[in-house]
Amino acid sequence: MDERLTCPYCQEGELVAKFGIKIAELEHSKLYLFKEQSHKGRVIVACKEHVREIAELSDEDRNDFMADVVKVSRAVSRAFHPDKMNYGMYSDTLHHLHVHLVPKYKDGYEWGGVFAMNPQETFLSEEEYAGVIDAIKTELGI
Amino acid sequence: MDERLTCPYCQEGELVAKFGIKIAELEHSKLYLFKEQSHKGRVIVACKEHVREIAELSDEDRNDFMADVVKVSRAVSRAFHPDKMNYGMYSDTLHHLHVHLVPKYKDGYEWGGVFAMNPQETFLSEEEYAGVIDAIKTELGI
Repeated sequence: MDERLTCPYCQEGELVAKFGIKIAELEHSKLYLFKEQSHKGRVIVACKEHVREIAELSDEDRNDFMADVVKVSRAVSRAFHPDKMNYGMYSDTLHHLHVHLVPKYKDGYEWGGVFAMNPQETFLSEEEYAGVIDAIKTELGI
Repeated sequence: MDERLTCPYCQEGELVAKFGIKIAELEHSKLYLFKEQSHKGRVIVACKEHVREIAELSDEDRNDFMADVVKVSRAVSRAFHPDKMNYGMYSDTLHHLHVHLVPKYKDGYEWGGVFAMNPQETFLSEEEYAGVIDAIKTELGI
């Protein structure tokens, strides 16, 4: 079976809704708010193409994708002022390139270490999600 | 105090020896074997400059750095045939951009999840480290 049929970043809809909220289509990527917000402003930047990992992209596509990643990183940083941004690409079993952008706050949750894939601890109200998304979109100028 | 004086990726020597073995200077980065080898072939690619994170680099410097990262990723993959490469940039408290490249093996250690910063479980003999390093250098053509 074509694995894109069960890929959240290809199909979106209910498959993304399990963990994320679509924020925007960027030039070379798709941007989602991660519903689990132990780290305020945590988002996912997914490649527009169903490729397994960043080493499979051409130089040009990799540069374009990373340009979107840092554009989002800077926007989230301006919106929420974390003390450090973390970046993780894992995807052992889900074969669609995406980056977890995880803002870390000094002496806050998981400060000084890695971050859990999904701690399942902190979820927001619809209004709170909308506020986080608006703040990010404002900083992205969209 | 200039934080570069206590930065392992600036000073190297004993500060790096606590966790890594220098493999090579690449064009835009420094490459180290991570001594903890729960994931065979795990390495660190550090920026040549003492910058805090990838969003601080210029477009050109970011593209150059990421070109080295994927060059190493491909070399490690050819050497050890992992089923997926993981990439992590954390550095909440150590302010020098570096990427953990962590080869994952299907049904092996931490397969399907994130990876620990340093599980402190698997260390090799000097001969075994040399073998891993040689395999990576061969695939890098150096």
